[in-house]
Amino acid sequence: MHILVTNDDGVQAPGLLALVLEMRKLGRVTVFAPDRNWSASGHVKTLDRPLRVRETILADGSAAFTSDGTPSDCVALPLLGLTDPVDLVMAGINPNANISHDVTYSGTVTAAMEAVISSVRGIAVSLDSPVGFKGSLDYSTAALVARRVAEKAVADELPEGVVLNVNVPYLKENELKGYMITRQGLRVYRDALDQRIDPRGRPYYWIGGEAPTGIVEEGTDFGALSEGYVSITPLQLDLTNYKAMDVLKKWIWENP
Amino acid sequence: MHILVTNDDGVQAPGLLALVLEMRKLGRVTVFAPDRNWSASGHVKTLDRPLRVRETILADGSAAFTSDGTPSDCVALPLLGLTDPVDLVMAGINPNANISHDVTYSGTVTAAMEAVISSVRGIAVSLDSPVGFKGSLDYSTAALVARRVAEKAVADELPEGVVLNVNVPYLKENELKGYMITRQGLRVYRDALDQRIDPRGRPYYWIGGEAPTGIVEEGTDFGALSEGYVSITPLQLDLTNYKAMDVLKKWIWENP
Repeated sequence: MHILVTNDDGVQAPGLLALVLEMRKLGRVTVFAPDRNWSASGHVKTLDRPLRVRETILADGSAAFTSDGTPSDCVALPLLGLTDPVDLVMAGINPNANISHDVTYSGTVTAAMEAVISSVRGIAVSLDSPVGFKGSLDYSTAALVARRVAEKAVADELPEGVVLNVNVPYLKENELKGYMITRQGLRVYRDALDQRIDPRGRPYYWIGGEAPTGIVEEGTDFGALSEGYVSITPLQLDLTNYKAMDVLKKWIWENP
Repeated sequence: MHILVTNDDGVQAPGLLALVLEMRKLGRVTVFAPDRNWSASGHVKTLDRPLRVRETILADGSAAFTSDGTPSDCVALPLLGLTDPVDLVMAGINPNANISHDVTYSGTVTAAMEAVISSVRGIAVSLDSPVGFKGSLDYSTAALVARRVAEKAVADELPEGVVLNVNVPYLKENELKGYMITRQGLRVYRDALDQRIDPRGRPYYWIGGEAPTGIVEEGTDFGALSEGYVSITPLQLDLTNYKAMDVLKKWIWENP
C-alpha cells in the first residue's frame, strides 16, 4: 500500500512526523506537504501560478517532498502523477480539533477531500489539544489511533465519496474510552470586534473574543471528545440540504 | 431591510455593482467587500492579524467599505457590529458559476455561509458565463434574478441554517426558462500535471488541463443551467454523511 501523508501546517510540523512514523507500519509512505503553515489561510488548488517542488528531510532524517502550494496542491500534485499511484491519503495530525463548522474551513479536512474527489481514500486526523496549551504536544495517541482507523478504512467497507474526519482526545492510549462514529456538531463562536487605534491615530480591527466552544450533544464530534472518545465523522462533499429543497419547491415564481 | 452586499473578487468588480443597484430596490444597502481578488485563494476568517477598513467609492459614485480581509471577514466585521444590524447578506455576482464541488472552495459561497453561521440570511449569486469568455460580462439578468430570489427568501419561508447558492445562465431575461430548485451536481475535473523547465534548468509545475465540466443530470445545478434555468441550491453547513454512519458503526474495534 502506498500512503501519502500531508498536512496544512507545514512539512516540519511535529504532528506530521508522528503520523508518518505510524503509517510506515502499514505501507510505503510518501510525504508531500506544504513548505509553510496554511492552517489559518486558504486551501484551494493553485491554478494562477506554477508550483515548485523540492526535496527536504524530516526530523528523523527521512526524505519528504515539499511544495510552495496549498494542502490541496500537495495532494493534487502526487495524484496527478508526480509520484506513484496513491492508495490512501492521510492528512494531519492537526494540533487542534477540527469539529463542527471547522470542517468547512480546515486545510486538513480539505486535503482529505481533495483525495476523495480524485477517488482515493482520504482521512483527516486532528488532536483535540487543550485550548491555550503551550509547549510540545504529545501526538503518540493520535498517531496510533490514525493507524487503527486507516487499517479499518482499508480492510472494512468505506463507502465511496466519504471523507473520514478523525478527532482524538488529548489523552493517553489507556485513558481512551473507545471509538465513536459521530455527526458534525454545533460550534458556538464567540468572536467579538476589538477596535484599536494605531500609533498614528487610525483605527484597526481584530476579530477577537474567546475561542469557539461547542455544544456537548450526544452523538456529535464535540460530544464524543468531551467524553474521552475518539470521534470519527464521515463527511460528504454534497452540501445540498434535501429537506429544504421540498420547502423551496413550493415557492411560486411570477416570472421566469 | 438592511442588506449587506459583498463578494470575493474585490470591491471594484462589476458584478458587485450590478448586484448593489438591484438590491437598492429592496432596501438600504451597505457594501463591504475585499480590497483585492480572493476568488482563487483563501477565504477563512483572519484571526492572526488585524484588519484595516476604509471607505471607497463604487463606479456609480456611491460609498462602500473595503477591507484587507477575506470575503468571510467582510461579512464577519459588519455582523460583529461595525455596521447597523444586517437582515440579509448577498454575495456576488461571481463572474463564473459555483456548482458542484466548487461550493466547498468558493469565496462567494463561503461569504454567504459566514452570514448563516451568524443566523443572518445568506445568498450567493454567480453567473454561468461562457468558458473562456473575454470582455465585459452582462450582469443584468443575474442581478434581476438575485433580487427576485432575495424577495422570495425574505417573504417566503426559508428554513434556518440554509445558504442559497444561486447560479444564473448567461441569457437575456426573456430567454430564461424559469427557476429550478436543484441539488449539488457532479463536477468532472480535468486537471493535468504540466511540468516545465525554467530558464535555469529547474522544473516547475502547473496544475493544468482543461476547465472542469459537469455531468448534465436532471435536478442538479449543472443540469438546470444547461437547460437555461436559474439554479437555486439550498446548502447546509452539516457535511455529515448519515448513510455512511450506519456502515461505519458496524466496524469492530479490538482496542482500546
